[in-house]
Order: sequence, then C-alpha cells, then structure tokens
Amino acid sequence: MNILAIGAHPDDIEFGCGGTLIKYARKGHDAHLLVITDGGRGGDAAERRREQEAAAKILGAHQLFWGGYQDTEVALDRDLIQRMEGVLRRVGPQLILAPFGDDTHQDHRYISAAVVTASRYTRNVLFYEGPTTASFTPSVYVDIGTVLERKLDALRAHASQVAKTGVEHLSILELAQAAAHFRGIQGRVRNAEAFVPLRLFINVD
Amino acid sequence: MNILAIGAHPDDIEFGCGGTLIKYARKGHDAHLLVITDGGRGGDAAERRREQEAAAKILGAHQLFWGGYQDTEVALDRDLIQRMEGVLRRVGPQLILAPFGDDTHQDHRYISAAVVTASRYTRNVLFYEGPTTASFTPSVYVDIGTVLERKLDALRAHASQVAKTGVEHLSILELAQAAAHFRGIQGRVRNAEAFVPLRLFINVD
Amino acid sequence: MNILAIGAHPDDIEFGCGGTLIKYARKGHDAHLLVITDGGRGGDAAERRREQEAAAKILGAHQLFWGGYQDTEVALDRDLIQRMEGVLRRVGPQLILAPFGDDTHQDHRYISAAVVTASRYTRNVLFYEGPTTASFTPSVYVDIGTVLERKLDALRAHASQVAKTGVEHLSILELAQAAAHFRGIQGRVRNAEAFVPLRLFINVD
Amino acid sequence: MNILAIGAHPDDIEFGCGGTLIKYARKGHDAHLLVITDGGRGGDAAERRREQEAAAKILGAHQLFWGGYQDTEVALDRDLIQRMEGVLRRVGPQLILAPFGDDTHQDHRYISAAVVTASRYTRNVLFYEGPTTASFTPSVYVDIGTVLERKLDALRAHASQVAKTGVEHLSILELAQAAAHFRGIQGRVRNAEAFVPLRLFINVD
Amino acid sequence: MNILAIGAHPDDIEFGCGGTLIKYARKGHDAHLLVITDGGRGGDAAERRREQEAAAKILGAHQLFWGGYQDTEVALDRDLIQRMEGVLRRVGPQLILAPFGDDTHQDHRYISAAVVTASRYTRNVLFYEGPTTASFTPSVYVDIGTVLERKLDALRAHASQVAKTGVEHLSILELAQAAAHFRGIQGRVRNAEAFVPLRLFINVD
Amino acid sequence: MNILAIGAHPDDIEFGCGGTLIKYARKGHDAHLLVITDGGRGGDAAERRREQEAAAKILGAHQLFWGGYQDTEVALDRDLIQRMEGVLRRVGPQLILAPFGDDTHQDHRYISAAVVTASRYTRNVLFYEGPTTASFTPSVYVDIGTVLERKLDALRAHASQVAKTGVEHLSILELAQAAAHFRGIQGRVRNAEAFVPLRLFINVD
Repeated sequence: MNILAIGAHPDDIEFGCGGTLIKYARKGHDAHLLVITDGGRGGDAAERRREQEAAAKILGAHQLFWGGYQDTEVALDRDLIQRMEGVLRRVGPQLILAPFGDDTHQDHRYISAAVVTASRYTRNVLFYEGPTTASFTPSVYVDIGTVLERKLDALRAHASQVAKTGVEHLSILELAQAAAHFRGIQGRVRNAEAFVPLRLFINVD
Repeated sequence: MNILAIGAHPDDIEFGCGGTLIKYARKGHDAHLLVITDGGRGGDAAERRREQEAAAKILGAHQLFWGGYQDTEVALDRDLIQRMEGVLRRVGPQLILAPFGDDTHQDHRYISAAVVTASRYTRNVLFYEGPTTASFTPSVYVDIGTVLERKLDALRAHASQVAKTGVEHLSILELAQAAAHFRGIQGRVRNAEAFVPLRLFINVD
Repeated sequence: MNILAIGAHPDDIEFGCGGTLIKYARKGHDAHLLVITDGGRGGDAAERRREQEAAAKILGAHQLFWGGYQDTEVALDRDLIQRMEGVLRRVGPQLILAPFGDDTHQDHRYISAAVVTASRYTRNVLFYEGPTTASFTPSVYVDIGTVLERKLDALRAHASQVAKTGVEHLSILELAQAAAHFRGIQGRVRNAEAFVPLRLFINVD
Repeated sequence: MNILAIGAHPDDIEFGCGGTLIKYARKGHDAHLLVITDGGRGGDAAERRREQEAAAKILGAHQLFWGGYQDTEVALDRDLIQRMEGVLRRVGPQLILAPFGDDTHQDHRYISAAVVTASRYTRNVLFYEGPTTASFTPSVYVDIGTVLERKLDALRAHASQVAKTGVEHLSILELAQAAAHFRGIQGRVRNAEAFVPLRLFINVD
Repeated sequence: MNILAIGAHPDDIEFGCGGTLIKYARKGHDAHLLVITDGGRGGDAAERRREQEAAAKILGAHQLFWGGYQDTEVALDRDLIQRMEGVLRRVGPQLILAPFGDDTHQDHRYISAAVVTASRYTRNVLFYEGPTTASFTPSVYVDIGTVLERKLDALRAHASQVAKTGVEHLSILELAQAAAHFRGIQGRVRNAEAFVPLRLFINVD
Repeated sequence: MNILAIGAHPDDIEFGCGGTLIKYARKGHDAHLLVITDGGRGGDAAERRREQEAAAKILGAHQLFWGGYQDTEVALDRDLIQRMEGVLRRVGPQLILAPFGDDTHQDHRYISAAVVTASRYTRNVLFYEGPTTASFTPSVYVDIGTVLERKLDALRAHASQVAKTGVEHLSILELAQAAAHFRGIQGRVRNAEAFVPLRLFINVD
C-alpha cells in the first residue's frame, strides 16, 4: 500500500514513526514523506534538506516531498491544506502518519489540524508523538524492536540536529530511545512507537 | 489467530461485533465467545442459551464459553476477573473484543472494567458498543458491508429478544442496522462496526 | 422567541437542526438562518443560494442572512466574529444553533469557535452535528419523529448537493436518516436531532 | 410533570437543586424527593429525618421517600438500583435530578452511578453539584434569583448541619450562596443552579 | 525568583492571579506583568494604561510590559509568540501565570495558545481563570485569604472597568469575590485563586 | 512536614515516588509509608514484608504502616476507607502520594478511589504512576536526577520482584529508569517522577 508520513521539520518523521516506516518498507509497501518546512530556524536549510534526503534513504522511503514552508512560518489556512491535498492526490495513501495536535510547537499544532481536513477521504490516519508533544495517550502500537537501530541511524543522518534538543545535553538519539522504551513497556514489548488513531480500519478483506 | 469476544448477555456480542467475527472466521481465524450471564432477566435462561448457541454457529465461532453469572448479578470482584482469566488461559487470544465501559447497564460497566484487568497480557483489546453505550467516540472501524446480512441473521437467532429493545417498537435488528449505517458513514463506508481501542498492535511481522 | 441557526454552507443547517427549526417554527417561534459561505466549491454559488432560499421556506424560517464568505475561505478572525455580532444584534436570539467544533472541515471549526465568542451574551447555545463532525457526545435531544419527512424535504431542496456526500453513493438524505435514527435510539425515540450544549437555561419563568 | 430529586444524605438535595425544585413546585409540578441514607454519621438520624421533612415542605415537595441506607454504607450493587427503580415506578418522573459522579464522597459516587442505570427509561436526567463535587463543568442552568432566599430557608431547616461544613467556619448557607453566585455569573445572571446533563429533551410536543 | 504574569487586557491579571502575585511580591520575589493589549475597546486606551500602572503598584509588581496589540486584534501568529519570547528573555521567569485557553474571548484563547509555545523552556506554567473562562477544572490553589482586600484594591484601580461586567449590574469586584470564595471552598479555605497547571516542579533543590 | 505515601503492594511506592520521598526525607521531612496489601500473589508474603522494610530504610522513611489486605483482595468499601483514615489520623499528612486511578490492576483502581475519599481534609494530594498505569497525563514533576541511584537501590531491596515484570525479560529497574527518563524529558530534565495533582497548594505563607 501507499503510506504518507507528514512532518513539520526535517527529523520529525524519523523521531515519530521512523521505525514503523522501516518495517512497512521492508514488507514492500511504498512509504512517502512530506516535510512541510525546511527547518531553517534549527540549522542551515540546505544542509537540513540533504540530511532529510539521506534519512529518507535509510528509512527505505519511496519518495520525499517538501511542503515549501519556512520553519515556524506555517499558518493554518487554506494554502496549507491545499498543498497537502496536492501531495495526497499524487500519493493516494491508504495510511497517513502525522504529528499529534497537542504540542508546544505551533507548526505541529497547525499541521496536525490541517491533516484532519486534508485526510478526510483517507481510510487510515494515525498521529505520532515527538519531544514537544503533550497529553498523548496512545492506543495503537508498533513493535520496533527489530528496527530500532536503523531508526536511530535515520536520526543520526540529521547530524546537524542530533545535539540540539534543549534538554540537559541529551541527544535526539537518547530522547528517541527513551520514548521507544517507555512506549514499548506500555505495550509490554521492549521498544515501540505509539500512536493516537484518528481513524483506522482493521480486518480489511 | 485466536480471538475472544466477551459479552454480558446473549446477543450482546452479535450486536457489538458480530460482523467483525464473521469476517475473521471466514478468513480462518478462530473466534471464541464468552457470555458472562445467562440473560435470565430478559427471557428464559435455557431458551437464551439455545439461542446463543445457534447464533454462535451463524457467526462461525469456534467455541462458546459461559461465565456462569445470573443476569444483573455480575459484581466487579476478583471472582469475575478470575473466571475471565481462566477462559483466557484456555483460548490464548491475540485479540479480545469486549463491551465499552461507559454504559447505562451495570453488568456492562463491570465486565468492561474486569476485562481491562484480565486482558493485561493480551496484545490487542477493542471495546465495542451496544444499545445502552454512552459517550462512545470510536477510532477503529471494520467494514461489515459484505457480512451485514449474516450479522442480522445471528441477531435473529436470538428470537426471544428481537422485539425487546424498549425503544418505540423498534426491533434489535433495526437498532443494529442504524448503528452499522451511522458508524459506516463516520468511516465513509455504508456499514461498519466501530471500536474504541484499549491497545492495538499493527504492522506485526 | 427568536432563534438563530448558523451554518457554514447551504444545507448544513437543514442537516444539523432542520427538524428542530421546523418544530419551533410550527409553534410560532421566529427561526432565522445565517449561512456563512456561498458553498461555491460544492456547486454553483448562485444555484446554491436559490436552493438555500427554497429550503428556508420549507423550514418555515422567518429570515435568511448570508455571511458573505466564499466556501473554504473562512478565517477565524475578528471580521468573522463581527459579522456574526451584526446579525445577532439584528435578530436578538434567545437560542443559537451552531456547528460543533470538532469537525474535519476547517470552515466548521472556525465558525464554531467564532460562535463561542459572538454568542457570549446569548442565553442558550447548542451545537449540532453534521456528516464531518467528530467525537460528538450529545446530551440534549429533540424528537423529530413528526417532522422528519419535512426535514428531508428541506434537504431535497438542495438538489445540486443531494448526491454529493463522498460516501459510497449514499445521498445526503440517507446520511440524515441514519443520523436521525441513531441519535433517536440513543434518546430512546425513533428519530431525533442531538446537540452538545454550550449553555442552556431551563425552568425559565 | 413529575420530578424526582435524589440525594445521598439529608440536605444534599436542598444544596444541589433546591432552588430548581422550588421553581418547579411553584409552577404546579410535582417534586418528589428520594433521600438514600439517614445521614446518621453527620448527626442524629431521627433528628435529620425531621429536618429533611421540614425542608421538603419548604421546597414545596409533593412527597419524600427514604432509601433506607445508613450513612456511608451505600454499596453500588443491584439492591441500590432496585430500590431506586421501585421509587421510579411509583413516581414515574419525566425529570430526575441526581448527584454528579465525580465526588470525594463515596456515597455520592455510588448513587450517581446507580442513577445512570435506574434512570435508563427516564427522558431527562440532570446531575447537580455539592460541596464535595469535583471536575464539574456544567452546561445547563436554572436562574434561581427569585427563590434563593427560600432555598436558603430549606437549608436552614437542616439546623443540625448548618455549621458542619469542615471549611474554615463557613456555614452550609455560605457555601450555597458562593456556589449560586459563581454559577450564576458563569451563566450571566446573579444566582443560578448549574447541572451537567446526562440526557435532556427540549422542544417537546 | 522571577515571575511573569501575562494578561490579555488591563485588569485580567489582577482578576486571575492578583492575590498570588501580591503574596509572592511580599516574600521578595520579582513579579513582572505583560499586558498584551491596551484594552481600547473596553475604554480609553490611555486611561486604561494609567489604571494598569496603578494596579501594578498595588500588586507590588517589579515591572510592567505592554504587548502593543490593540484590543480584540490579537492574532495567533509568529509575531505574538516572538513578542512574548522577547519579554521572556528579559525576565527569565521561573514561573509564568497566563490565561486558560478555553474562554469565550478570542484574545484569551490566542494568548493562552501562544504561551504554550513561548514558555516551552520555562520550568513552571500555570493557567488562571477569568469571568469568561469555560470548563476550568483547577488542581493548584493559592490561599489568598490574607491578601484578598489588596487584590480587590488592585481591581479598583481599574476604575473605568469596575462596573463593566455585562452581568446583571454586578461589578468586577463582586465577580472576583465570588470566584475567590467558590475556589476557596473547593480547596477548603475561605478564599483562593485556582490554577490549571501546564507544568509545575515541586520539591526543588 | 508529614508526608504519607500509599501503595497497593510492596515496591509500588518505590517505583512511583521513591525519588520524591528520598528528596523530602533528606530535607528533614517525615515520610510515612502505607502499604495496603502484603503482595502475597507476587511472592512470599513474609519475604515481601522484609523487603518492604528494607526499602523503607533506603528511602529514609520515618514509619511503615501495613493495610492488612491480601494481594488482589482489596475491595472498594467503607472498610478500606476507614483503615486509610485511621492511618491519616495518626500521621496527619500535609501531602499524600497515591496510585493513579486509571490502571489495569484493580487493587490500584480501588485504592486510588478510596484515597480520594479518605484524603478529603488533606491539603495536597498527588497521584503517581506505575507499570500498569494508563492514560496518565502528568503536570507536576520532581527532578530526581540526584537521587535516581538511591531510588533504584530501594527497588533492588525488593529482590524477589526485580525480575517479575512480565515485560520481555525487563527488570523493574529497567522499567523505573525508562519512566524516569521519559518523564524527565517531558519536563526537560534528565530524570523525573511525574504526578497528576488532585489538589495542590503553592505559595503557602
């Protein structure tokens, strides 16, 4: 099937659902990425694009789309929804993975809200978490035990960002491991990615 | 895989997740039923047992367990949890389907709470709705378009109950069709069963 | 009393609270309609205005106001609130019926939020649901059994829209019937419209 | 119409919905009271019964039922539900007023849960608040400006309890006035009683 | 420590957390105020600035910042967040007090959302309530019994606003007293200010 | 001040709030422990009591109370509340730390509900999490960076339990570290314990 993962900034997708994408890609599904902003406030935009391209390869992604927004300048308007709809028409996803809406970062809030609208004809939509997500009570899990190392590799590809977490000298790798471990234990496995479902069909044909 | 559907009374399982069970059974999965009470307050207990056995056959269920409680006499205590755990040990389900906890019927509330405990080592647990469920905001759907008629057949097997809905001369069949249609439209299909996930693993190897 | 029903697009009011308005009008209350956009993305704007005018007559509405926005171009800003406040000053409603805020359509989200502000001096405000509403757990009901057919007539007046639901060849009439039946059963009647109250006074002198 | 107000202890009904009952009684409706326990832990049971009887008269209540439980010994079991159902059969209420479920007092929690079951065939059910209610976000209001003094009189009839609030020498009268004033301001009137609706029909007939 | 109280309009801070600020100031902490708009729709902007300056003195505040927005013209965009961030850099607060997000006033909603972003590196953030706040279920309390009179003095300094509550001739002082009393009783004291915590560290050092 | 930590089984307190207790004890506060059951289903009851006594010493606790219940046999009745009230009278706590109510373990659910009642006169009450807690969205944090090792020592004292987590060969120490790290990152520190406040007073005298 076609999967579309949507992220606000380079490295958001890898953090939130990189393991899930790796597993889907390994099974032969086509994972597409849509990164809305260039991440230019967290680093050099050109460098971050290169890093994102490298990370997409590590994930085994089929294609990488850019939303064309500048970092922190996302507005929740018709333009954002229409750019998403344009990518959705090209990809035709059966599953969308997108940032959860309750987040301290305004870009994440707006993108999450826009996804709710743009995805209205998509069968399956799951929200992932990130380091700035709040009040996230997941009910859908993916066991990423076998792909955690590769997920961390994808994060390492964002070399300019690894140390920039703002949390007491912790790297983004440590944050990702802590989340994978905590959510894993919630689901009674060692490492997992967790999701809040907007809409998910099971037992399909 | 092994599936266990838990219901408070005869016909609850058919109403809440009958279509889902039929689809799983048709694919070769083993559906087990656990009916906690004999439904003796809504009819003759012996008759209701026979009806439930007939309905189980229509669903294509592998096995039918009885909880041994009398109707409306379920208590939320260790005994209830242990009886469930006993059935869980025998079935070893990968998926449990159980009544949602916010319900005007106290039996449903208690059974739902007991399932939360008894299912703590089960990977996947989904809550279904019934005519007395309240504040149900589902996020997981099963398209039951191709099996709706058979689901209604399973409900018809509870012949003593069909007319006993207490809602303006509507039959349980009409209630089930209304729910299937409303939840279907929510998920953008004609007919669906809808669930609130407690815990659901996807992308399993 | 004066009632103001606010809708994002032509036919939203009829779907969400048409039966309620018909009942109020029949009792001699004055129902006013405010339709914020022209619905130009779902059809020809001029045609949709004519359809809305015809539907308003079928509802027995006293007056129809247009918000003057283009479809999908509603923004949540002071202008929207002030246009609503202008209509509220003219109508002086004791009761406002408006779209519920959790909805996949951004116009509905913005209009609902604007109503919360514009209606701050209005005694009674109820939110209705539509085909794109999410997580709606109503507690206020109106039995529309005696006026369901007329509600469907009002929807039929939106002839250009009847087939455009995007849900497996279902018409808007089928969606409205499914909702009326499902919400009715929740309230233990055959057919109902359901509401989430923002603020409702009862036992008024 | 017939109204049934249910309270856990003597004076709970007066505090939570006394003003509403006075208004209904003055309009000719029949208000019935069901007090589940004798309040024997907060005072002398016989004295509290006499106080409750006097308060019922001040409210203008039609009839006073006793649930027969001892204070703090209410259990959430079939017996409690059946005693309520017995009174419901006798009264045939169109409206039930009952304690809200999120409360530090276990009697209130159990009675509220039992009401959800016992009232399943009752059209209108509203939950009121008390001094120990938590997380109460009301949406239904009754303006009690004209009857506040009489409500306070009904509370004064519980003479043995007036001073026993456990809150810094405040009397139950001060607590009731504070709640009436705060909820009034929320609804933009001077004094109100506020309710969380379980289910409320409007626009009837 | 440094504390920053953020308000949408002159007098919002005094109403929501004036007592808390007075107590902190008396203990030697530095309370800074940031008032986002000039309140020009509720009165003369110049007069309201003078009133706010007088009120700040009564609170014992260290410094008063103005956001520079016009009343009701706050937009939830990057500019608003950046102005807040500018003040945060100057103040370096350990604690931020800000308006709660569920409010009928759009300025309050936007400012609350912007605070969530701007405060992401601040250790402690609490939301206060005002006369237009909705669905506020606080869990953090400050006993303001000893400073209530001074809080009311600070509100009186907003002389042009005292009578402008829109609630049945009640003054802002009466509203503040009603809230203090109601929230106090919730916390089992006579008068309190109540807060919903976004994030609060205790047991520090 | 006097602090009372309440746990369902030996090692629950250490897991949920051991670091917080160590910090309070080091500052000279008196930490009291109340362990409701003997943990006899997870091991030998006598051994678990000895382990709990050793752990209490490592925490620096002042006193250890036993609730006298058998593991998994806690019922939510007046007896449970009264035993808690008995300990509360002896300790006179200003702060209670107790298990969060949404949990797959029924003992935790009942004890949490009983604490809500028994603590009604206690100023400050915080709920902690454990390995079986669900839907926990904390807002109060304690930085346990400096005491994490000692917290782990306290857990190690429960030697019979360390390996019994039921989660893929993970030890209780690994679970505790994962939670401390995840909650720490949420609060932007390396390691934290997190709490949902029922009621918390700040800015006290």
